[in-house]
Amino acid sequence: MGVVLPFDKNNNEAQASIDPLLKLVAGGMERVNEAILVRAQSHVDMIPELAHHLINSGGKRLRPMLTIAAAQLCDYEGDAHIKLATAVEFMHTATLLHDDVVDESDLRRGKKTARLIWGNQASVLVGDYLLGQAFKMMVETGSLESLAILSHASSVIAEGEVLQLAASKDTATTEDAYMKVIEAKTAALFAAAAEVGAVVAEKPQEQCQALASYGRNLGIAFQLVDDALDYSGSEAETGKAVGDDFREGKITLPVVLSYRRGDDEERKFWKRCLEKGEQDDADLKKAISLMNRHGAIDDTKDRARHYGTIARDAMAIFPDSDHKQALLDVVGFCISRVF
Amino acid sequence: MGVVLPFDKNNNEAQASIDPLLKLVAGGMERVNEAILVRAQSHVDMIPELAHHLINSGGKRLRPMLTIAAAQLCDYEGDAHIKLATAVEFMHTATLLHDDVVDESDLRRGKKTARLIWGNQASVLVGDYLLGQAFKMMVETGSLESLAILSHASSVIAEGEVLQLAASKDTATTEDAYMKVIEAKTAALFAAAAEVGAVVAEKPQEQCQALASYGRNLGIAFQLVDDALDYSGSEAETGKAVGDDFREGKITLPVVLSYRRGDDEERKFWKRCLEKGEQDDADLKKAISLMNRHGAIDDTKDRARHYGTIARDAMAIFPDSDHKQALLDVVGFCISRVF
Repeated sequence: MGVVLPFDKNNNEAQASIDPLLKLVAGGMERVNEAILVRAQSHVDMIPELAHHLINSGGKRLRPMLTIAAAQLCDYEGDAHIKLATAVEFMHTATLLHDDVVDESDLRRGKKTARLIWGNQASVLVGDYLLGQAFKMMVETGSLESLAILSHASSVIAEGEVLQLAASKDTATTEDAYMKVIEAKTAALFAAAAEVGAVVAEKPQEQCQALASYGRNLGIAFQLVDDALDYSGSEAETGKAVGDDFREGKITLPVVLSYRRGDDEERKFWKRCLEKGEQDDADLKKAISLMNRHGAIDDTKDRARHYGTIARDAMAIFPDSDHKQALLDVVGFCISRVF
Repeated sequence: MGVVLPFDKNNNEAQASIDPLLKLVAGGMERVNEAILVRAQSHVDMIPELAHHLINSGGKRLRPMLTIAAAQLCDYEGDAHIKLATAVEFMHTATLLHDDVVDESDLRRGKKTARLIWGNQASVLVGDYLLGQAFKMMVETGSLESLAILSHASSVIAEGEVLQLAASKDTATTEDAYMKVIEAKTAALFAAAAEVGAVVAEKPQEQCQALASYGRNLGIAFQLVDDALDYSGSEAETGKAVGDDFREGKITLPVVLSYRRGDDEERKFWKRCLEKGEQDDADLKKAISLMNRHGAIDDTKDRARHYGTIARDAMAIFPDSDHKQALLDVVGFCISRVF
């Protein structure tokens, strides 16, 4: 599944692979997968049908893996991490359901979106149901600190989505403003997912914060790589057609950089294609060529590497262990997707 | 504000008025109203704008009042009931925002819906934000039991909405099936709102359950009265035009009863108007006349009274007090709206 590549010349131990993590969390993830099936149940048939469509659609479940791995890294011996990891995945699933409605998306990971099959209405409501189930599971763990972290993340994610909505179609978005959106939309849940693993293990604040920082920066790197792949990957790699973001008029970092580095003529092009939505296939080709001319895709990858390095440094306070190494390798894996 | 009417010949003490409750909870509700303003804040401008539109749209805030009144009835002296009441109102507001998107409603309480002004997308996301804020406030109280009750209610509400969606436009819905929908959609939050007031006061299970039962049955009565008003009230009374439910094709108890009591010809009429949505103003008049012929509106009111009686009996275990009396009077107030 994972690609093994040397990731960073300055750290020969780090490999760009997700395989070590997959092995270490396999037992825990089996229990998470069972919990996902049980907790998406309802006497209202449409709920499990719709939930399973998304749950089975081939996501890597990276977020709950972070919770399991962090708990194991912290020698946690209880059961609460299974519920918290499941809650994290449900929060993510709920966000995807609502996102697809908000973005009017027809495809996700190459499959029809739930809203296209069951309608926007059901997608909104089943998202709400999964969010409710997520909170129920958190409450069952009795960990008020985990509840505080995850409920805060829940607000921040929604805030980030609204921010993106308000800023959407604005090609003049600054890099700072864009980073705020992805910190909220993507990185907040990665951070919370990793942090609660240490929190249930009752580790000192320093270690909880280290895992939160690891998760946050991994999440940012992950999102930036996604942004770059949308203009440079293949559908087989990403489950998305190249140019999906472009066709949807999404402002991502490659666009932000190209817009700022271009001339007035180019800025008119970006406005027409993304703000007004007047575009065709030739425009996508032109967009990619402008991005390459300005080094926007390469620099997006560089930015991703920057955050990847921060994620790895955050982990430095932990003594060496298989789990630590596996979490470091995942950073390389997320970034190596762009090569 | 309230109408004072004798409510039930068998209980001369009970008045149909909300005024005693309003007086008793005024201090607490002032703090709830402040908390609502503070907690709907965000650095993302669209969030408070949209939230305030709904928050200021003239709802009675009956649900948070139940939490405050229940806590006071139970001699609670802390602060947690303010946060719980605010959380309850945010859960309700989030539900309304998502409901209006799901129902494609243009008006709520006679005002334009948020989705009509800011769009469906913002309504979905701001609803998510308010739900996140609600959970944050619950977590701050540190009451895991309240969290369990309210997160369970959150799942049940969403489940009820999906159930309604699945059953919607089905004129053959049984009364039982319809009652399941409103128990989940409306009564679950009324029940939780009242119950958590006793829970934070650490009252015995018997009293917590009594308040939950009071809330649940009051909620059912409240919803049935709403159903009846939609075919018999005036816009001034309800903030809704008569026939809104009819025009939206909603299956409510007056329809369920009329459909079952009617002949084949009438059932064809209901199917055409509500399932196929083929209707005009004359059809609304005909619908009301069929309902009156079959006693469907009167019987809906009778059903509401039935649940109102259960709500009042649930309170009987509490010793007499101003708070108890005020809660009993509210039952009459909710039901007297139909006279």
